[in-house]
This record gives sequence, C-alpha cells and structure tokens, in this order.
Amino acid sequence: MTDYLLTDCHVATMAAQGSAYGAIEDGAILIRDGRIAWVGPRADAPAADVVERLDGRWVTPGLIDCHTHLVFGGDRSREFEQRLGGVSYEEIARSGGGIVSSVKATREAGEDELYASAVARLEGLKATGVTTAEIKSGYGLDRDSELKMLRVARRIGAEAGVRVRTSYLGLHAVPPEHKADRTAYVDLAIDDILPAAHAAGLVDAVDAYCEPIAFSGEEVSRLFDRAKTLGLPVKLHADQLSDGGGAALAAKYDALSADHVEHTTEAGVRAMAEAGVVAVLLPGAYLMLRETTPPPIALFRQYGVAMAVATDCNPGTSPVASMTAALNLACVQFRLTPEEALAGATRIAARALGLTDVGTIEPGKAADLAVWDITRPAELCYWLGKPLLHARYVSGLRA
Amino acid sequence: MTDYLLTDCHVATMAAQGSAYGAIEDGAILIRDGRIAWVGPRADAPAADVVERLDGRWVTPGLIDCHTHLVFGGDRSREFEQRLGGVSYEEIARSGGGIVSSVKATREAGEDELYASAVARLEGLKATGVTTAEIKSGYGLDRDSELKMLRVARRIGAEAGVRVRTSYLGLHAVPPEHKADRTAYVDLAIDDILPAAHAAGLVDAVDAYCEPIAFSGEEVSRLFDRAKTLGLPVKLHADQLSDGGGAALAAKYDALSADHVEHTTEAGVRAMAEAGVVAVLLPGAYLMLRETTPPPIALFRQYGVAMAVATDCNPGTSPVASMTAALNLACVQFRLTPEEALAGATRIAARALGLTDVGTIEPGKAADLAVWDITRPAELCYWLGKPLLHARYVSGLRA
Ligand SMILES: [Zn+2]
Ligand SMILES: [Zn+2]
Repeated sequence: MTDYLLTDCHVATMAAQGSAYGAIEDGAILIRDGRIAWVGPRADAPAADVVERLDGRWVTPGLIDCHTHLVFGGDRSREFEQRLGGVSYEEIARSGGGIVSSVKATREAGEDELYASAVARLEGLKATGVTTAEIKSGYGLDRDSELKMLRVARRIGAEAGVRVRTSYLGLHAVPPEHKADRTAYVDLAIDDILPAAHAAGLVDAVDAYCEPIAFSGEEVSRLFDRAKTLGLPVKLHADQLSDGGGAALAAKYDALSADHVEHTTEAGVRAMAEAGVVAVLLPGAYLMLRETTPPPIALFRQYGVAMAVATDCNPGTSPVASMTAALNLACVQFRLTPEEALAGATRIAARALGLTDVGTIEPGKAADLAVWDITRPAELCYWLGKPLLHARYVSGLRA
Repeated sequence: MTDYLLTDCHVATMAAQGSAYGAIEDGAILIRDGRIAWVGPRADAPAADVVERLDGRWVTPGLIDCHTHLVFGGDRSREFEQRLGGVSYEEIARSGGGIVSSVKATREAGEDELYASAVARLEGLKATGVTTAEIKSGYGLDRDSELKMLRVARRIGAEAGVRVRTSYLGLHAVPPEHKADRTAYVDLAIDDILPAAHAAGLVDAVDAYCEPIAFSGEEVSRLFDRAKTLGLPVKLHADQLSDGGGAALAAKYDALSADHVEHTTEAGVRAMAEAGVVAVLLPGAYLMLRETTPPPIALFRQYGVAMAVATDCNPGTSPVASMTAALNLACVQFRLTPEEALAGATRIAARALGLTDVGTIEPGKAADLAVWDITRPAELCYWLGKPLLHARYVSGLRA
C-alpha cells in the first residue's frame, strides 16, 4: 500500500460546508488505493511514501460533465453553414438534415468509428479537467443502434481515461420509420429497447426529451414508470423551449435532474426543490440557439434548488467540447458566480448523476482530481479558451 | 535548397478568387525557403526532396489574430467574480479595480513576468492555429511602461513561435496620475511616448480608443496626425459602446482597420468602404459585455467592407484566448458565414495589419500554415472547445 502525497498546492475541496470553494490554501492531499485518505493544511500533512510537489498550483475535484450526447455519427457542420448562409430550418429538414441526419449516420456507423469520433470530442473535455462524463443514447432510436451507442459509451468509460455514466434516451425523437405511428415507437422504446439495454447492463439512468416538438408528459410518464419498475433513476430534458411542466414531472418521479429548464415556472422550481431535483444548466445550447430567456436562477437560489453546469455536447444545438467554456458561459450568460458554476461542475454534477464518491475532495472519495495553472479558482470561469489544466488524476492515477 | 511537399491534404487557400474557401480538394503545397513555392491539385504536384503526407487533413493559412491586448500584468478574475457576486462597477473602480488595476500591475511587473504570462495566454492562440498575432500596448500609460510592453511584444515575436505586429495604444485610458490634467497626458502620449517607442523600432501601427469614456475625436486626430508624420499606419477602437463617429474618423486617416464598430452608422460604413478600412469584429467582448447591438454586418456586406475577426484578448472585457472560439462566436452572434469568418481570420486579418505576405496559401507568400483534424473548413467555426489543430508551420517550419 503506497501513500501518495500531493503537496505545495492550494485545494478547492468543493465540500459543501466551510470556506468559499472549500478552499485550503497551502494544503496537501494524501491518496491511498485510489482514494483520498486525507486532505488538509500542508503543515499537518501525514508522512507518505511518495511526495509530489505541485508548485503552488490549485487542485479541484476532477470536473464532471453531467449532460452530454458525446457519441454520434456524421457531421452537422454543413447544416451549421447552411443556416448561416440563409437556408431555412424547413429546407434543411426537407433535405434530410437536422437530428434525422445524426440518426442516419449513427445507425450506419460502426462501433470503432463511433468510439473514435467520440474520443476526439472527449479530448476537449479531458483537456479542461473532466474526469467523469455522462453520455446519452438517443441517436440510434432502434434497438440495435441504441445498444450500440451505449456499448460505445461503456467502452469510453473502460478505455478512454474518464468515468462514464450512461443514460438511455430512447425518447429523444421519433425515428423516420415511425413518423406515421409514434405510439408504436414509444412502445418499442419502453417495452423493448429499454429492457434490452438494461438487461445488457448498459443503462445507469433513463432520460427523455419532454417538449411539444418531442414527447408529451404522458409518454414520458409511461417511460418513467417502466424505469422505476427496473429500479433505474430518471432525468429529463425539461422546459427548454417552452414551459411544458417538465420540471414538475421530473419532481413527481424524484428525478436526479431536470435539464435545460429555461422556461420552468415558479411552481416547477418549488416542485424541484421539494423533490431534491438538480437543475442542470446548459449554457452552450443557450448560446448556440441564441435563446433570450435564461433559466430562473434567482428562483433556484431562493428555493434552494442545486444547479449543475454541463456542456450538452451534441451535434445539433451545442457543439461544445470544453468544460471550462461551459463554466464561462454559465457565468457570463446566466450570472452564476464562479463558485456556483464550479460547484455545478463538481459536487452538484455528481448529485445529478447519483454519484456519491466523486465531486469533492474529502476523505473516502475517489481521488479524481484536476490540477490547474491558476492563481484563483475563479480563473476557471473567467477565461474562455486559455489552456489551464496541468494534470488530471483518475482514481489517484495520472490520466 | 530543400523542396518540401505537403501532400494528401485538402487546401483552403483562402485566396480571394475562386471556389469557396479557395478550396483545393486532394491538393498539395510545395514549400521552399520558408515560402510557398507552389500549391495545386496533388496530381500536378512537382517533385520534392521531402514529402509529408497529411492523411486527408485540411490545411489553411495560419490564423491571424489581428487585435489583442495579450501583454498585461495582474489578474482581473477577482473583479469578474466580484461583479457576479453583485458588486457594482463603481465599487470595483473605487477599490482600485478596472483598467487602473491592470495599469498598476503592468507598471510593477518585470519584463520576464510580463513575457511569461503573455506566452501562457498565447498557448491558447497557438493551440487554435494562430501564427501571427497583433499585440497592443496601452496598460503602461507612461513612457517606460509602454516601451516595456512593446519590448515584451517584440520578444514574443522573436522567441514564442508566432509573428507579432505591435500597435502603440497610448490613448487607451488616462492614467491615474493625469486624471486632473488629461491634456498633459495626451501631449505626453503623442509628443513623448510615441516618438520614443517609434525611435526604438517598437511600433508597427498606432491605435487609440475613441469613445466618450476614453478619448475624443479631436484627441485621436492629433495622435493620428503625428503617426502620419512618422509614417506609421493607424487603426482605431471605434463605435464600440456608442456611435462616436469613430469609423468615419478612421476612414479620414486611411486607417488599416476600425475595430469593434458595433454602433457604426451607415455613413460610417460608407466612409470605411471608400477608404478601404477593414472592420475588425470582436465577438468575445460582445459576449462578455452582454452587448445586444451587433455590428452592422448587412451594411458591411452591402458596401463591401472587408470584415476581420479577432479575440481582443484582454483582462477586462474579453478574457478570450482561443481563435476558434472567436470564429464560433462571430458566426453564432454576428451570423457571419464560416467562410466569412475564416477569411476574417486569414486574408482579411492580414489586411487589417497591413501585411501582404501572409493570410493566404499562394505562391510567394510565407509558408505559415495550420493543419487541422477536420473534414470541412466550416468545422473550425462550428465547434467550441474541441481540439482541432494537428500542426502549425511558421515560415515552413513546424512550430
Ligand atoms: Zn441534451
Ligand atoms: Zn481592444
């Protein structure tokens, strides 16, 4: 058993109680068996077998990107270009663009291809300190393709240097072959694909896209009932483009999180608070869609709803592959404080994924850490695009 | 004399005429003596001493960030945090924050310190393909400190793997010691600092901040008259927060560029077009300041004003150190097409700096190149934060 001491550093533990950022200036961290054995002032540090000096750098928990669609096939930059060239959404959709093009390309892609393209995007997350990423299915929309996406997500967790939590997002869109018969697709997603994916051990949580342009509260409820039967936690894309009662629905099912929530009303916020549902803020999509209604941050604060921040990395509405960019955008656009944003990418993001052993630097937690070339934690939110990461550790190993 | 051939690549030459992006699919580039000797279809490529295959990657001109304040002392992330915590601008200014804090820290910093901190920011630009950066003075505001900043900028150009063009920005703000006597500072900036900096070979262009909160048209005119006497080209921070006639003033002096230009009127646009002044768009500052009036892009197009895109990297209003982030924000916020944005970071950015031997991939130009892991040039504008760069070449050497 090797004791490994990180020292000559400042530690933003992000623990819920205590100083801003849970900061310990001039601190040290003892790692044993991939876990944090001790953290505190350097002057009190225990002896260790190996000592690594961090030259005054800051250490935070490894960042957690709790909402991504990292695995997908194809390339939607052409569509981005078409829209800026004046082509309408309708024309793009008619010519096979939009989410349908991602579904088609994802179905056609082999697993190695999906893995390679996702890992290339993951590089942006890792370079900005991410050690845990959630990855959703939802571009397959048939049994084989949904399971394929989830297997690729699992492989990323096994081979690519990050922890991965998967979410089954069968109710993301109605696939082309079911356009005339959406109920059949909802049945398939609930009665066939979800149980098959779950039986294969591929599902950590169940997600859905609740919006008039996607799925109704009734359809989502059927899915969530099935998830409960299977013992799976749920989360929900809620109230992104309109108030569809998504937040309250998420609360009714004790969801881990309600995500987007730009249009959530006070009643929805109250329901989230009572059920302990995390609000996952996705400022990249807000920017890219040029939205003008920010999430009700003041209400979340007032009612004590915990706020997470994530990239929503996806090809259509948030081609964002930087966790620090998400932090910056959350502060600039939504006026989160840097401490709120950083908590939203660590301690609160862990909650949004139902994880209890990552997200803070506290004894007993996994030694998932990010070491930064910064002089104050707020720099992580202040800069857009400046490389700040010195090193990442996953389970105590430099990754 | 070694002929060096880059092949098995697609080339976005960004030449003014021809196909979109000046694209040559399945192309090749011959480099000789640090310059482009030939570019064309791979099938027509001449023989070479050394051949490097780029495995189907795209090559663009090295990107040019034509507006930065990369050199400065201190850290304004505390102020960013204070503002988000509800502290007013006035309170921050009273407690020594704002630009005054950057001036103080820049004056106190040694040249090595300024160099090191600027190079850390430059890493973000280099990682996003930048091979030429403009760097302004303007946080010194006394003779020694302005010359110190410009010497650091020159050192970056000599040692840090990018070409650098300097701009003397003495009329950036009135320094604290001249608050009661601004005319004395304007005199000093024009009659003392500029000639001294020029005599030391430190000035490639002369810039000013023309805005009611900064300097008047009359003050800028005096500076520009002196610049003309010294044979130096001028550029101008114009019409950022209000229409102050800055664009027309820039046009009157045949400025290389008018920068920001959010509030420029049609008359100003017309004057810029007639004088051939480039509009430098700074979408990072627009985002960070939460501005709501975008530059008059439609008028720039209508009158044929060339548009550049830059980071405006600075500690107060644009802590942006990624050129691809600037491209993304220009497209998302200002609705530039990806081709316009990329021209704005290459061919047009060169014009904004008065440079004729960089900015396109054409025979005779310097072999400043960026090689990208992308399948279409638009990907450079589509992604926020995904690492896309494979390699940079400056004067034909991998940098
Ligand atoms: Zn999503
Ligand atoms: Zn500027």
